[in-house]
Amino acid sequence: MGIPELNVASTGEAIVNFIREQVAAARSSGVVVGVSGGLDSATVVFLSVAALGPEKVTGLYLPERDSAEISRVHARAVAEKAGIKLVEIDLEPALKELGTYQGTVPQAVQNSVLNRMAVQGIASMRNTRPFQLTMEDGEVSEVIREAIAFFRIKHRLRMVTIYHFAEKHGLLVAGCLNRTEYLTGFFVRYGDRAADLAPILPLYKTHVRQLAKHLGVPQEVIAKAPTPDLIPGITDEMALGITYDLLDAVLAGLEQGVDRDVLAGELNVSPDKISYVDGLIKKSAPWRQEVPYPDLPGLQLP
Amino acid sequence: MGIPELNVASTGEAIVNFIREQVAAARSSGVVVGVSGGLDSATVVFLSVAALGPEKVTGLYLPERDSAEISRVHARAVAEKAGIKLVEIDLEPALKELGTYQGTVPQAVQNSVLNRMAVQGIASMRNTRPFQLTMEDGEVSEVIREAIAFFRIKHRLRMVTIYHFAEKHGLLVAGCLNRTEYLTGFFVRYGDRAADLAPILPLYKTHVRQLAKHLGVPQEVIAKAPTPDLIPGITDEMALGITYDLLDAVLAGLEQGVDRDVLAGELNVSPDKISYVDGLIKKSAPWRQEVPYPDLPGLQLP
Repeated sequence: MGIPELNVASTGEAIVNFIREQVAAARSSGVVVGVSGGLDSATVVFLSVAALGPEKVTGLYLPERDSAEISRVHARAVAEKAGIKLVEIDLEPALKELGTYQGTVPQAVQNSVLNRMAVQGIASMRNTRPFQLTMEDGEVSEVIREAIAFFRIKHRLRMVTIYHFAEKHGLLVAGCLNRTEYLTGFFVRYGDRAADLAPILPLYKTHVRQLAKHLGVPQEVIAKAPTPDLIPGITDEMALGITYDLLDAVLAGLEQGVDRDVLAGELNVSPDKISYVDGLIKKSAPWRQEVPYPDLPGLQLP
Repeated sequence: MGIPELNVASTGEAIVNFIREQVAAARSSGVVVGVSGGLDSATVVFLSVAALGPEKVTGLYLPERDSAEISRVHARAVAEKAGIKLVEIDLEPALKELGTYQGTVPQAVQNSVLNRMAVQGIASMRNTRPFQLTMEDGEVSEVIREAIAFFRIKHRLRMVTIYHFAEKHGLLVAGCLNRTEYLTGFFVRYGDRAADLAPILPLYKTHVRQLAKHLGVPQEVIAKAPTPDLIPGITDEMALGITYDLLDAVLAGLEQGVDRDVLAGELNVSPDKISYVDGLIKKSAPWRQEVPYPDLPGLQLP
């Protein structure tokens, strides 16, 4: 029961080799990493530096209107300890031009305390979790649709900016998605999942934290509550409505094919938690698959 | 020899059913299409209208500094004939904020006559085709890197804008990529390939033209030279260095496993043309695949 035990040393080495191979295969000059100040991007930075040396790794810090000040502090701490260059590009002007901050939700979300109350209140009222609300089908309310459009455009504009930088400098984009996010759909298609290589994709969030300690990621980055830093005050665990420890344990159990009731018993949680996680996996499946296209006779794609 | 013959009526019907099914499965309110004024997006608009009715289809026309005036005329003609709403969003201000127009290449490319001379001159000097230059590895010159970053960011910002609109309105994004572009890598990863459904992906460009005629796409859109409308004066065939008719015939031959020399003989072209197309397919393969990640023992992804 639980997630597979991680040998941090051999895992780190395997990922470092992977990064080196990818960069060599593309005959690229190095990698660029969007450094958010959080755990995942810090880990990818440290792995990339171990693979290529600090000269071949560039960090991009991409704040906008709603970014927390502490994110910049942490992004700088990561870059400094890893010895890499950190370039800051303010996304607010472009986001403004794209109409990101227009509308009821975008104008309302500038207070972290109220955001927490509102997000949890709406979810509780509808007997669901905040993140789950964003995964419902087309018939969601206008407020939810506005919120979805609002946070996803930020992820996507980060991607656009990272690629623009990478292409100007002949670098590959190293993505920071982990297994927990990938399996639950806690990512934005064509946003934070978009990359040229995905060094930590097979690792659960719990694994990433273990690996980060081994690599020497700054303690304050490892210790803080993970957040997408898109809407003030909203952390990952608040949006997901479940702790990463429990989420990872449930995911691993489901992946190992453990019976749901057995799993609920072993983890001492209500079966509803298991169904919730299973629902996220199923609901997000299309985002992990190819874009669907019609099956036309004689024109199957290779 | 040649591409499979298309039954336009049954193919159109199959695609229309596919669009209807996708929209129903997502319980979405309809689709949004980035309408460029070109053939592919016009065809997707007409198919979408046949599937859902004009009320459930929205076109977005997204010009920027370097867009041709005729593109707007054609986008409007498509929307008018199809009976759909066309929303115009100017991408220039956001692109400007993102630094798109800064640098030697972006500043220089505002004259279509000079562009044609320059692009073809550089390609000829290096004994290659313009598009091929953009697919080389990391060691390309700074000018080429600048050009790549310059046109790709435009494709990606179109995607960001289309998704922002779609998410605000609860719509799916219908992509406009065709088989010819898909197989040759003549698309931008996380740009024009990004969509929720890809109605014409299995069709060669030649097929799209046939289907467009059947659907009643405006004649001027069918007749004009296809262009990405990213850099003034540069058409698809100029960038590719080969006509679509020949490209499709070569692609179909290679897909059918025809011997290259036989193919060159049948098509009456030099074997070099065959190798060129084959090289594009191979070179672009990673863009059609999943983002690579390390293979870690016990942590294979499902």
